[in-house]
Amino acid sequence: MAIELYYWPMIQGRGEFVRLALEEAGARYVDVARGKNGMRAMQRFLDGAERGALPFAPPFVRVGRTVVSQTANVLAFLGPRLGLVPDDEGARAEASQVQLTIADLVAEAHDTHHPIASSLYYEDQRQAAAQRARTFVDERIPKYLGWLERLLERNRRSRGRWLVGRDLTYADLSAFQVVAGLRYAFPNAMARAERTLPKLVALHDRVAARPRIAAYLASERRIAFNEQGIFRHYPELDAKPPRAARKTTRGKAPRRRRTR
Amino acid sequence: MAIELYYWPMIQGRGEFVRLALEEAGARYVDVARGKNGMRAMQRFLDGAERGALPFAPPFVRVGRTVVSQTANVLAFLGPRLGLVPDDEGARAEASQVQLTIADLVAEAHDTHHPIASSLYYEDQRQAAAQRARTFVDERIPKYLGWLERLLERNRRSRGRWLVGRDLTYADLSAFQVVAGLRYAFPNAMARAERTLPKLVALHDRVAARPRIAAYLASERRIAFNEQGIFRHYPELDAKPPRAARKTTRGKAPRRRRTR
Repeated sequence: MAIELYYWPMIQGRGEFVRLALEEAGARYVDVARGKNGMRAMQRFLDGAERGALPFAPPFVRVGRTVVSQTANVLAFLGPRLGLVPDDEGARAEASQVQLTIADLVAEAHDTHHPIASSLYYEDQRQAAAQRARTFVDERIPKYLGWLERLLERNRRSRGRWLVGRDLTYADLSAFQVVAGLRYAFPNAMARAERTLPKLVALHDRVAARPRIAAYLASERRIAFNEQGIFRHYPELDAKPPRAARKTTRGKAPRRRRTR
Repeated sequence: MAIELYYWPMIQGRGEFVRLALEEAGARYVDVARGKNGMRAMQRFLDGAERGALPFAPPFVRVGRTVVSQTANVLAFLGPRLGLVPDDEGARAEASQVQLTIADLVAEAHDTHHPIASSLYYEDQRQAAAQRARTFVDERIPKYLGWLERLLERNRRSRGRWLVGRDLTYADLSAFQVVAGLRYAFPNAMARAERTLPKLVALHDRVAARPRIAAYLASERRIAFNEQGIFRHYPELDAKPPRAARKTTRGKAPRRRRTR
């Protein structure tokens, strides 16, 4: 029985955390809203015309008769089914705690370009966006990613390779995604932040190199980052380029990691 | 074995969702940071000096050797132990989905007074706060609370009395708390919104009347709402008073529900 995923078809957004888990597990799934009449099918759930729990917003999944919404809750529900979380309760709570903290970071990343209202255009809240983004870049990115780095340092069971327990969990996939998204949106800020995040950067690369993830990222199923999503590249919201790059007279662009 | 709760001692904040669950269940617990040397004890976890999962921020609990953080995750973990969630997986996912959506609402309520940065004073972001609060009051409160009302309408198993399944769950306690908080912060907006939320208002009253909750609310353990917490009453961020009240020449104050 295929898992049905429902999410906005044009962006990675919060749905991407679910897609990555499904892809890594090699699960049979349908990305419903990207198919024919898919948006209408998704809307039926939001209108309460379908059975099961009423989602507040996408993403949500239907597995058999069970409808599950809220990204972290979807992953807590799918994780055991997909083999992406250990069997014991403490480890599951730990993976969920990481996912929820990443969700908070994602919400704050969104609010850098929409600090006043999601229902307004970015262009109508640029001044507040510039202010919010500055604190996000200076304080929040280092705080959140520094916390992930510390989790890796503390996790002796994986020798610093994975966030929770011995093996990869969905939390690692989500950490990959948030690094990729922040690199897209804030390349200068991330170039600076990553200097003190060696384990997190290595985790990102380790996830990107997993055969199924690598195949997914190279496929058309992976929607490109864009300026309708959560991670948007508005250069005016990013940190300034690193000093070395600004001072150079040789016209060399700063080395920038490729983000897929 | 007593459950240890760790949260900022001067505010209800996110810790209150956990406190309400512990109180309703009549659980043995210690609100550690409110005791002697409690803040220092809490800080040790945040510094990574204690064993177990590293919390990003309070609230978190320690049960035996297990440390669990992130409010919704704490409640998903404690819920079965406290008898505050049904036994089946679908219902648990449903309760968690409600909790997470309430958490999103709480984050947005916070950002009405801190739209630019948590690290700045309200006074330094008042203009953006006024803008953000306006959308929150006009669009977001009705959308979130309207969704809770619909959940009650749809839940035939409880005849519209509880949000998930037949009986009270921690999600109902959290819905009570968010109604109480929004009434404190936005009394005018809530007076207007509640006209179309009869089931949610009844749920609030039903929770408030439960013997253990009523005793808790009347006790010193219940911290009063205040302007350091998440729900802050800044009149300039609220909606205008209802038209009838504004037009009256008899000098009567608009009827306002008591919020504890």
